[in-house]
Amino acid sequence: MFFKVTTSEETFEILKEFSPCGGETAPLSEALNRVVCEAIIAPEDLPEFARSTMDGYAVRARDTYGASESLPAFLEMTGEVIMGQAPAGTVTSGKAVRISTGGMMPEGADAVVMIEYCHGLDDTTIEVSRAVSPLENVIRPGDDLKKGTVIFERGAVLRPQDIGLLAGLGIEKVAVYKKPKVAIISTGDEVIPIDQRPGPGQVRDINSYSLSAFCASAGATPVNLGLCKDHFSDLKAMVARGLEMADTLLLSGGSSVGARDITVKVLESFPDMELLVHGISISPGKPTIIARIGDKAVFGLPGHVASAMVVAEVFLTPFLARLAGDAGAFEDDHFYLEAELKRNVESASGRDDYIRVKLDKKDGRYFAEPIFGKSGLISTLVVAHGLVKIDRNTEGLYQGQMVPVMLFKPMKGKP
Amino acid sequence: MFFKVTTSEETFEILKEFSPCGGETAPLSEALNRVVCEAIIAPEDLPEFARSTMDGYAVRARDTYGASESLPAFLEMTGEVIMGQAPAGTVTSGKAVRISTGGMMPEGADAVVMIEYCHGLDDTTIEVSRAVSPLENVIRPGDDLKKGTVIFERGAVLRPQDIGLLAGLGIEKVAVYKKPKVAIISTGDEVIPIDQRPGPGQVRDINSYSLSAFCASAGATPVNLGLCKDHFSDLKAMVARGLEMADTLLLSGGSSVGARDITVKVLESFPDMELLVHGISISPGKPTIIARIGDKAVFGLPGHVASAMVVAEVFLTPFLARLAGDAGAFEDDHFYLEAELKRNVESASGRDDYIRVKLDKKDGRYFAEPIFGKSGLISTLVVAHGLVKIDRNTEGLYQGQMVPVMLFKPMKGKP
Repeated sequence: MFFKVTTSEETFEILKEFSPCGGETAPLSEALNRVVCEAIIAPEDLPEFARSTMDGYAVRARDTYGASESLPAFLEMTGEVIMGQAPAGTVTSGKAVRISTGGMMPEGADAVVMIEYCHGLDDTTIEVSRAVSPLENVIRPGDDLKKGTVIFERGAVLRPQDIGLLAGLGIEKVAVYKKPKVAIISTGDEVIPIDQRPGPGQVRDINSYSLSAFCASAGATPVNLGLCKDHFSDLKAMVARGLEMADTLLLSGGSSVGARDITVKVLESFPDMELLVHGISISPGKPTIIARIGDKAVFGLPGHVASAMVVAEVFLTPFLARLAGDAGAFEDDHFYLEAELKRNVESASGRDDYIRVKLDKKDGRYFAEPIFGKSGLISTLVVAHGLVKIDRNTEGLYQGQMVPVMLFKPMKGKP
Repeated sequence: MFFKVTTSEETFEILKEFSPCGGETAPLSEALNRVVCEAIIAPEDLPEFARSTMDGYAVRARDTYGASESLPAFLEMTGEVIMGQAPAGTVTSGKAVRISTGGMMPEGADAVVMIEYCHGLDDTTIEVSRAVSPLENVIRPGDDLKKGTVIFERGAVLRPQDIGLLAGLGIEKVAVYKKPKVAIISTGDEVIPIDQRPGPGQVRDINSYSLSAFCASAGATPVNLGLCKDHFSDLKAMVARGLEMADTLLLSGGSSVGARDITVKVLESFPDMELLVHGISISPGKPTIIARIGDKAVFGLPGHVASAMVVAEVFLTPFLARLAGDAGAFEDDHFYLEAELKRNVESASGRDDYIRVKLDKKDGRYFAEPIFGKSGLISTLVVAHGLVKIDRNTEGLYQGQMVPVMLFKPMKGKP
């Protein structure tokens, strides 16, 4: 079978065809970073009553008009607003009521004079040395949010302040998308568990660990199925198990042609399988396979450890955000930093190159040092802070050029 | 007692005096985002043997010198390297051994010719149409990492690729700093649990939820102690409990002068207490208290919900990173995005202003719309994507000016 290598853009379009996981209900205390799956509407005004934003005196603003230090207004102090309680009386003309920040405004009062501008003359009289306008230092009912407002649209990711707003409205449970479960299988006759000492020709399983951590980092739940030899029926059984228990499946390792062939054969043995991508025009990461089995995506990632991570960073980041329901999944989620390139970098045309770079900072400016090294070396990613993309229509980048660096999270050492 | 308001810079210096939490051992599968507390040194070479990076033939490079399509070199194929096993024989002059990506290089061979440039003539003879140099398509022992190299210094934050490297070296457990535990107490006679319907003058507890989520977001473990009335002995008991079980303590709410006074009185009642900060010259967030009780920091955050979050974003972000052991804790961890300001913003001199802004993107450029609104309104932070700092020596910012926006994470809606 012959497959045309897919471009990055085509690959993103293919990934957009997959749907988010189903919904569930999460208690508010566990809703951080979760994605809203039904628009949330304010069930009431926030706040439901007028509140003072300052410590001072609740007054009728017009009673203070013209007041100044040389010509203060004199008001009669008739009581105090107790925090958490409804005020006892009404503020009529010429009266003032002591109020604290957050206190409920008494009826009749429309503004608060800050305590700094009030001076007690005796037990019942205060001198006001500054005028206030109506609503000054007052939050009105619904000022924070009006009943019926759409607070969060479907697909919004909940941040700490968003959790706070929901708490304020008494919303204890939120309908969110399920966190995507990602099954991870590491293949290859040469790969052994990390607690074993490799014999000649053997290497420890890096990909299960780096990919699991990557998925966790992206907010998904990794399900590490472990190692599998390059053996058709073993791999087939493991893939079937992964598809049963997870929302998507990552196969990694199997860097040899033989291993890749077995992967494709195993995928093809599922009757409802469609091979969507067989090679992407990027470097590193070209030998990437993407298939659909039923309604689930299966990724055959490159065996080279650094290639697998670059493919994860570029394609799995938006894909996992899509599964999680994030409305902005395919609007690049990465943070970029502008840096000056320290060396020329050549690039083959016809493919997008992702260059690993190490950043340093001098006099407040960032510099990006390209890290050259084979894509089988995990250390090239360990010393790197991020990636610089060289578009397939560009022949290379020049020393001194400003380039956007796609940052890995968290930012290592924050140069 | 009179306290001079502290500047942001002074506050950071004060926070730097606190030490990271102690260490513990984490299994590698739970070490993501944790901070290394003892330098990690490579216990062995990675890899420990030479490997091929391509599918092809392991050869002696000099046997291919001068080979081209018109004048190929002819080599005798003497066998195959089985994945995960030591090669059977040695490659001598004029010989070639079939090898897969990741296979162990046989003795005698010093390069691999890619399979694309080899053509089988009969069962034992191949035609090589391109020359390779010594070490071409080969990873040597220690190429990824040499035994004895310091891989991670103390204070390094572990990312997915870092976890991968540790897996490759067989390091199953990592000495990391403990995750900081943050006790959170919400105070105020007017504050009620979120599952209750507020009566007149009452509001639901926003701060416990937004601050807990903030701490979780920063990689710390929030311990929500719940609500406390503005009552000396109740609050004192709760503070004592918080100090016992957590590494730092946040008190929030109590926005009235009376409530703040009780907070200070409670803190002062601890014999080993030192009041470090009583007011910071920032807005919003001025009425912030920082004390040391024993070796732990206690924060009295402003009662206004938005102010508390701004103080958390600016000061707790680096402080929690410091407790977590992050060597770069006080090198600003935020991501910034340059945007064009859509309106003039005035600023009072003598304080740093943090303006909430909403971003939008037009023709690939970002625009920042300042959100004006009282700091008691949580909604101002919910519509915001980040903060713009106006330095206290600056009188304001102008419409059209490019400003760095300190982004909230995750980035809302990714405009």
